Amino acid sequence: MSIAIIGLGLIGGSLGLALKRSTPAGLDTVGYAPHPETVALAQRLGAVSRTAASPEEAVQGAAVVILSTPVLAIKGLLERIAPHLPPGCLVTDTASTKVQVMAWAQEYLPAGVDFVGGHPMAGKESRGIQVAEPGLFQGCCYCLTPAPHTSPQAVQKMVKLVEQIGARPCFIEAAEHDYVVAAISHLPALLSSALVWLTTQDPSWPKMAQLAAGGYRDLSRLASGDPRMMRDICLTNRDSIASWIDRFIQGLGQFKDWLAQDEALEAALSRAKEARDSWLKGRG
Amino acid sequence: MSIAIIGLGLIGGSLGLALKRSTPAGLDTVGYAPHPETVALAQRLGAVSRTAASPEEAVQGAAVVILSTPVLAIKGLLERIAPHLPPGCLVTDTASTKVQVMAWAQEYLPAGVDFVGGHPMAGKESRGIQVAEPGLFQGCCYCLTPAPHTSPQAVQKMVKLVEQIGARPCFIEAAEHDYVVAAISHLPALLSSALVWLTTQDPSWPKMAQLAAGGYRDLSRLASGDPRMMRDICLTNRDSIASWIDRFIQGLGQFKDWLAQDEALEAALSRAKEARDSWLKGRG
Repeated sequence: MSIAIIGLGLIGGSLGLALKRSTPAGLDTVGYAPHPETVALAQRLGAVSRTAASPEEAVQGAAVVILSTPVLAIKGLLERIAPHLPPGCLVTDTASTKVQVMAWAQEYLPAGVDFVGGHPMAGKESRGIQVAEPGLFQGCCYCLTPAPHTSPQAVQKMVKLVEQIGARPCFIEAAEHDYVVAAISHLPALLSSALVWLTTQDPSWPKMAQLAAGGYRDLSRLASGDPRMMRDICLTNRDSIASWIDRFIQGLGQFKDWLAQDEALEAALSRAKEARDSWLKGRG
Repeated sequence: MSIAIIGLGLIGGSLGLALKRSTPAGLDTVGYAPHPETVALAQRLGAVSRTAASPEEAVQGAAVVILSTPVLAIKGLLERIAPHLPPGCLVTDTASTKVQVMAWAQEYLPAGVDFVGGHPMAGKESRGIQVAEPGLFQGCCYCLTPAPHTSPQAVQKMVKLVEQIGARPCFIEAAEHDYVVAAISHLPALLSSALVWLTTQDPSWPKMAQLAAGGYRDLSRLASGDPRMMRDICLTNRDSIASWIDRFIQGLGQFKDWLAQDEALEAALSRAKEARDSWLKGRG
């Protein structure tokens, strides 16, 4: 029984490498990606043991199918592979938004095939198979969103797979996932892009570019992420992201009011510092 | 002739260590800080060769005086040390805002004493002498804002000092400095604090804390900075920061509108990515 990985970027490639490393006896992994060079490179790097010429071919005889593409590509893929999935097969994905993906799975997957939404909380701002690494998921929280009708066996299979690559399974309801991840991942990414978008258009940007240091580098890191992936995330999690943008605008306006009130400003800054430091401490 | 360092935190301490490392023949550096334990630790770590019991004592016989305290403390210090400064002495500071500091220097320093505003574009989110390191300024841009009447000799002395610690002197007018640094340093710091302030007050924070990963860690890093230092920065650069907050709110609102327009959104994200990637590349 094989594991099919469809989409061989940073996440799909790293999953293949992590699975290979944790299966000393060898594992049959089949890879597919739209660009033949990506597929060839994935095989050369050892992320998959063999390749397929199409998604339909990749899922033949698969016990597990992992969809690791930008969110909006998942809909079409589910439609294409649905008729070719072996009964008892487990399908999962790695996308950053879950409500939309769960709805598509419900719509397109046949009875006898289980779906468990997945989202590993790990990544880099660089994309592509060339930056994939087997240790990417080590110790990370791997969100799992089974549907109410998903079989316990499928959930158990997914938990085993997550633990096998060194990650911690974190069960969460799809809507809560999208709300939470909008706050801690999608909003930060847009703040980062908006900061770069604004500053680099300023007439003083040449001077800014010269002076900008570690603070700007860190705050702008997420702006270097894949624009298409981020666009898909925004389009499939619009309401949560829009609501967090509104709240952020209000919060930042509050900070602006505090610019003239030294005590309130220092109290808010101190509160943020303590909260961040204690979060970091909790992560060990 | 000695160098006096008043304020022995991350920056003052690192300056002392960097000066010591780059002067094999030995250098007479005198340190003062309000807490005796800080002064003792600075001497034990080798950041200063001797200590003083007061700012007045520290500047006696000094060729160079470096004020490395939170911005708002500089005013009182200039007032206190002014009557004790040897003629021909060079006074400089390391604060993140320059217009206000230049005005105080103009107001309090006697004729025969030169002032060159300074701001090394280097730092960490941690504070204090215990995290000081001699290599902190290696390759960094060190902003210098001489006054129109500052003597060329004093400017030359300052340039030598900056180069001695491995940094690059970057001349900039004080008002432009404050505008530019508001965009690339002060605004990012407030975005970071506002993000943490907002998310950690949300009822879903426990779940967020569990899921938050590298993106949140980077975007929130500046929120771990020293609240008092940041408060002082805000109070002395209020107009530039307020104007950048307004522009950011407008820009983020624009991104919100684009959440429903896939092409415009992807174009803006791509533009930000390219600008950030090319900035990073330019830094080498």
